[in-house]
Amino acid sequence: MSEAPRAETFVFLDLEATGLPSMEPEIAEISLFAVHRSSLENPERDESGAPVLPRILDKLTLCMCPERPFTAKASEITGLSSEGLLRCRKASFDGAVVRTLQAFLSRQAGPICLVAHNGFDYDFPLLCMELQRLGTHLPQDTICLDTLPALRGLDRAHGHGTRAQGHKGYSLGSLFHRYFQAEPSAAHSAEGDVHTLLLIFLHRAAELLAWADKQARSWAHVEPMYLPPDAPHLEA
Amino acid sequence: MSEAPRAETFVFLDLEATGLPSMEPEIAEISLFAVHRSSLENPERDESGAPVLPRILDKLTLCMCPERPFTAKASEITGLSSEGLLRCRKASFDGAVVRTLQAFLSRQAGPICLVAHNGFDYDFPLLCMELQRLGTHLPQDTICLDTLPALRGLDRAHGHGTRAQGHKGYSLGSLFHRYFQAEPSAAHSAEGDVHTLLLIFLHRAAELLAWADKQARSWAHVEPMYLPPDAPHLEA
Repeated sequence: MSEAPRAETFVFLDLEATGLPSMEPEIAEISLFAVHRSSLENPERDESGAPVLPRILDKLTLCMCPERPFTAKASEITGLSSEGLLRCRKASFDGAVVRTLQAFLSRQAGPICLVAHNGFDYDFPLLCMELQRLGTHLPQDTICLDTLPALRGLDRAHGHGTRAQGHKGYSLGSLFHRYFQAEPSAAHSAEGDVHTLLLIFLHRAAELLAWADKQARSWAHVEPMYLPPDAPHLEA
Repeated sequence: MSEAPRAETFVFLDLEATGLPSMEPEIAEISLFAVHRSSLENPERDESGAPVLPRILDKLTLCMCPERPFTAKASEITGLSSEGLLRCRKASFDGAVVRTLQAFLSRQAGPICLVAHNGFDYDFPLLCMELQRLGTHLPQDTICLDTLPALRGLDRAHGHGTRAQGHKGYSLGSLFHRYFQAEPSAAHSAEGDVHTLLLIFLHRAAELLAWADKQARSWAHVEPMYLPPDAPHLEA
């Protein structure tokens, strides 16, 4: 049963960061695509019938320079480095990021549902930590949906056997390949991954919307990935 | 001679609106790509040597529902309509747009140079009008560059004869076709056109940067396209 209201806008989200949860990562890139529910209920399609991105789509992508270094692996797969971000004079995840994010979200009809792939284990707790560090928060009626357990759950509910299930990959790349018989573009850039996520969502939009209406969680229940290093303060 | 400081960040911009200047249009979509000067001085290239978008790129795209109707032609070429925007519950160009824009720009190292194709005759005066209507403005050291007269001027300076010149098109589509031997993607969506503009800029980045350093104008000299209908007020 849902603990949360029916979302009016779905904000697809991906973060690139300095590493995996065990090394207490910091965000280096955030991308959000805001799509109204009506565009998900009636996806636009190309001549072949494949869903395409909605014409009306608000988008925000920001890069930031973390205070801690990237792991070599994170730098390699994201194409981001502290040197490159400093050369472009990017500040860290700061009050201006929060103001941009909040103003961007305030343009979207609420309630808002944040959607991320593996969001419960990565993107949501990491974003929660950065916001908590700055002493700020998202609108109280914000809910969130993780497409990884959602798609697994939908496949399970459709009676696909557990054994067959085990052989199916649920990474963004595997899902995209299964649904579109193509490689996703710009993997491991935040925006590239949100683009891939939104196309995957559109491919199963009716099921995922129904799932979200029943199973989306309140953002208020998301716990920070780790205790933020600084005391809460919000830059004016 | 330049009247303005050397820009540190170039913010490529495109607007879609309800029509041409003669019908006093309103903005329906805005897209901005912010690129640091260092990424333009040393563009990344693909295997064929063609420039590609910088990895570190901040992006903002917002749709809004104008108060006046679209002309049939504007609706046809942009793919936007009041009905579609209302269905997605988009508000007009309001205080939240201004806050998002200002917070987004505040993340970019200044001084900022806004870059638009045909900017002096369309995008800059139209954006100026919307900002003036809301009683707000851009940072004082903002400068602006119009790639249409800049590219015409560069070609002229390179001694291309006036007669040959007359046969060259300087629309975004013509330039892209000439430089990349391909059709631009997503023409007449704000983001699609900024993508095309940035690739065109990258193709002649060294010349255009030198041009900007000498010829960019102060944003303070931009006049609104027409007198805004409402008295200035900024939503809190």
